[in-house]
Amino acid sequence: MVVKVYGPDYASPKRVLVCLVEKGIEFKTVPVDLMKGENRDPEFLKLQPFGELPVIQDGDFTLFESRAIIRYYAEKYKHQGTELLGKSIEERGLIEQWIEVEAHSYHPPLYSLVMQVIFHPLLGLPQDEDLIAKSEAKLAKVLDVYEERLGRSKYLAGDEFSLADLSHIPFTHLLVTKVGKERLIRERKHVSTWWDAISSRPSWKKVSQL
Amino acid sequence: MVVKVYGPDYASPKRVLVCLVEKGIEFKTVPVDLMKGENRDPEFLKLQPFGELPVIQDGDFTLFESRAIIRYYAEKYKHQGTELLGKSIEERGLIEQWIEVEAHSYHPPLYSLVMQVIFHPLLGLPQDEDLIAKSEAKLAKVLDVYEERLGRSKYLAGDEFSLADLSHIPFTHLLVTKVGKERLIRERKHVSTWWDAISSRPSWKKVSQL
Repeated sequence: MVVKVYGPDYASPKRVLVCLVEKGIEFKTVPVDLMKGENRDPEFLKLQPFGELPVIQDGDFTLFESRAIIRYYAEKYKHQGTELLGKSIEERGLIEQWIEVEAHSYHPPLYSLVMQVIFHPLLGLPQDEDLIAKSEAKLAKVLDVYEERLGRSKYLAGDEFSLADLSHIPFTHLLVTKVGKERLIRERKHVSTWWDAISSRPSWKKVSQL
Repeated sequence: MVVKVYGPDYASPKRVLVCLVEKGIEFKTVPVDLMKGENRDPEFLKLQPFGELPVIQDGDFTLFESRAIIRYYAEKYKHQGTELLGKSIEERGLIEQWIEVEAHSYHPPLYSLVMQVIFHPLLGLPQDEDLIAKSEAKLAKVLDVYEERLGRSKYLAGDEFSLADLSHIPFTHLLVTKVGKERLIRERKHVSTWWDAISSRPSWKKVSQL
């Protein structure tokens, strides 16, 4: 069964696509144009009642929320492709911890930057310079903790690449390219090395060119 | 080994405590007073570098982020106490989906309400009436989706209580008690029935009296 992934042009669905490539799972993509409000179409809301991306269909199984989808495929295809959930319950615990840190500490200020710097101009909305400055300061503080952590292990949850690192890739790619804040990464030696390692993976090279 | 849970007076650590009670896992609690800034103590920051609650110690294993900790214990003690992660990979997928909905759609407006209505007065900070109104409107929209969902299954991820429901309990308890917005729950028939079912569990009765 080929997995259908909705909204491949956006960063959250790319989190799912990188995971599918790492696991060697076939997929096809279905475009959803947020600028045209296609995420509010009644047919789309039947799949994703909050009108958000991504959502997947796998036969008659429908699932939304990117970090739920990547956990599902990492577990379903545990022994195929890259191992992304660790080798023990404790390793998985630490991976879950860093997925949560990504979701709750790293992502919110980064998402504000992406919205303010990339999408507000596209939507003709004003930029809030104060919010941009505060978001950058928050993200810098989070990255200070990452710097300390990544000085002790190659990846966030240990010495192997995992779902926790993968979850950071698509939005951090926007940070270093379109948001123009690559220095937040480059000013931190261990974070910089980590970013080079995770962003040069063949899976991301493939997904970023879709 | 008795699990040490830091910060039992606050809602996020109570998410962990309800899980431990459901699984029949022994624990002891270690108070952390956020009002006194004990979460910024160097010793605490060694356990939780972001200065946030909760964090647990289980022998020499340390783990933070409440939703990572509950996943860890639900998996480690899969065959003890209440089954909280479903019986199949697909069931777990749906549970993960609704944990993520709680974290990303339900929790942020509820957290704003809790901060503005309960904690700002305690901290001598002004209340932002506009933010309170917007947060309530956002939460109401999320609850409209829940109402539709809970008209089709007894619990969020299906017909069994799971980690997805559990994750909602402590902050929703604050919503209906100290925030004084119980009507958001009671105006919706299926949400109301669901709230009665999950908040009357012996595990929550025990934890809410700690």
